Amino acid sequence: MVAWLDHPIGDPSRIHQEGMTARVAVEDARERVATLLGARSREVVFTSGATEAIATAVAGAASRGSHQVVPAVEHSAVREAAARTGEVTVVGVDGHGRVDPDELLAAVRDDTALVHLQWGNHEVGTVQPVVEAVEGCRARGVLVHVDAAQAAGRLPIDFRSLGADLLSVSAHKLGGPPGVGALLVRRGLRLPPLLVGGDQERARRAGLENVPAIVGFGAAAGVLAGNGTLDAEAAAARALTDRVLAGAGAHDGVVAYGDPGNRLPHLVCFGIEGIEPQAVLLGLDQAGIAAHSGSACSSEALEPSPVLEAMGVDAHRSLRISAGWNSTDTDVDAFLAALPPVLDRLRALRRSS
Amino acid sequence: MVAWLDHPIGDPSRIHQEGMTARVAVEDARERVATLLGARSREVVFTSGATEAIATAVAGAASRGSHQVVPAVEHSAVREAAARTGEVTVVGVDGHGRVDPDELLAAVRDDTALVHLQWGNHEVGTVQPVVEAVEGCRARGVLVHVDAAQAAGRLPIDFRSLGADLLSVSAHKLGGPPGVGALLVRRGLRLPPLLVGGDQERARRAGLENVPAIVGFGAAAGVLAGNGTLDAEAAAARALTDRVLAGAGAHDGVVAYGDPGNRLPHLVCFGIEGIEPQAVLLGLDQAGIAAHSGSACSSEALEPSPVLEAMGVDAHRSLRISAGWNSTDTDVDAFLAALPPVLDRLRALRRSS
Repeated sequence: MVAWLDHPIGDPSRIHQEGMTARVAVEDARERVATLLGARSREVVFTSGATEAIATAVAGAASRGSHQVVPAVEHSAVREAAARTGEVTVVGVDGHGRVDPDELLAAVRDDTALVHLQWGNHEVGTVQPVVEAVEGCRARGVLVHVDAAQAAGRLPIDFRSLGADLLSVSAHKLGGPPGVGALLVRRGLRLPPLLVGGDQERARRAGLENVPAIVGFGAAAGVLAGNGTLDAEAAAARALTDRVLAGAGAHDGVVAYGDPGNRLPHLVCFGIEGIEPQAVLLGLDQAGIAAHSGSACSSEALEPSPVLEAMGVDAHRSLRISAGWNSTDTDVDAFLAALPPVLDRLRALRRSS
Repeated sequence: MVAWLDHPIGDPSRIHQEGMTARVAVEDARERVATLLGARSREVVFTSGATEAIATAVAGAASRGSHQVVPAVEHSAVREAAARTGEVTVVGVDGHGRVDPDELLAAVRDDTALVHLQWGNHEVGTVQPVVEAVEGCRARGVLVHVDAAQAAGRLPIDFRSLGADLLSVSAHKLGGPPGVGALLVRRGLRLPPLLVGGDQERARRAGLENVPAIVGFGAAAGVLAGNGTLDAEAAAARALTDRVLAGAGAHDGVVAYGDPGNRLPHLVCFGIEGIEPQAVLLGLDQAGIAAHSGSACSSEALEPSPVLEAMGVDAHRSLRISAGWNSTDTDVDAFLAALPPVLDRLRALRRSS
């Protein structure tokens, strides 16, 4: 990436040496991303991130019908984009945040343009039954979009054998840089693009290619696609989050959310009885721990978490702990040491107030 | 930018130290971009580039009416996005590619949601009468969007005194990195966002901020906003392109397009009688000169140039020469030396065929 930032970058669409060099780099990255996700190279459309990939899927499908099916626990990028296209049927989840594929399919109507199902939940980490859901959608003849932003790079993904029509991913969630993502579009499927005015990405996404970021995305995907790497990374993340789950869960009033048997390897989520998670975050930050209250995509949004609400959890916000690419057992030790005094202090404050 | 790529980047929306550090960097960059463009910091919405900024302006305004006014020489990102929102009135240009502000205003109807006018043309470099056009639109009470992707960083821009409602720019065209741009949104104007699902950019553009690219955009803007820098850069570019104009224009059958008295400093455009510009590009590339045939945004599009067509030029494509930030007199010498043999060779080929 730094090499691509260091000198002026050729426009990959131009017929001069600088442009062609950039074109080769972009296509090499596309091949790596395709390999990681079990897709054909031509099925990969680079975007500015998962939000744009999702918006492209939602708006593109909306040209075919005015109804979409959206599980209640989808990311706000899916829920809000779909809500603008016309009518939406929201499908509920069980107490673990899991969607029932039969309920999802029962919501499909003759005018349904697109069914959404995330691969793994962004707040509580629950892995959804995407294989069954996609199979059902294909049998019903309705387009299906899988938001794999949380799952890509953490769980094996094979777009070809999954058979989904659309799948969206983000580079920065799998070790790549911010500012780039991809929408996988099944071969043969033609949807109107969201961004127009240029023939980049085979006329599926206009605008100069973000060559340095695409190269970085390709590099991250290339590493993960290496023999056994993804499984090893996932096992390491799972070992760390298992320790977080066991250690934090041992405290009074700390309860884990999500599906314990079917969760993303890198992410765990807690409720803390009688304590506002925002206060816990601040306490953890003072101890050098960067955690998140996993409600919306942004701290500026202070509404209750729709994920927790859909799960029937009696709390508005949760505490989300993720293992990153550079997280270690020492980091988990630090978290487990920092949490009890933070909780004790907040509980003491509550008693005295 | 490299520092921001070197270590994991905090999400600027999160309430931990890493997030707040990133937030400070983003807001510092926003201030620099605002200063360069004479805007308030809060008026700057970072996007993935000018294409997205334009799409956001077009789609946002479309919620207010189904008619937009589009000069025939606008970039395809404007023309194609506007064409999808409903009805469009296309306004013609004179032989120099210049829009008549009175004609533009005459196209405004009661249901007009947005009037577009580029600051400077992307193919022939003609500078448009944006001040008069914006003044007219404001008097008429209709929203106006200025595509300043080619002009920003080349000509002084003062968003506040211009009074436009929306103005779009691209970082990579003014010395910043690819993958980032901005839409300026006049204070008080509220339009629905194109990308939804998060409250980033004051709920005007969802998705994780591309912190390294935004920082790079800010750095480039900061340099250009320095005392006298923009004027000096523009004068240097104009001196180079003046030499290109005089040198290339001296050849038989080479004709300059655009408005000689009112052109962007960095860009000149030629037609070459009887020779296909694509062939010239290949010949120049062999001599180490990266030029462009300025029709569409992408070489994959082989349609005739709508800009030339609107100007009434009897040619389908042109040869566009731009001076970059690192261009020198030696580069111009090399171009002027390379052009005649390329033209001679192509003309000889034509005669012998």
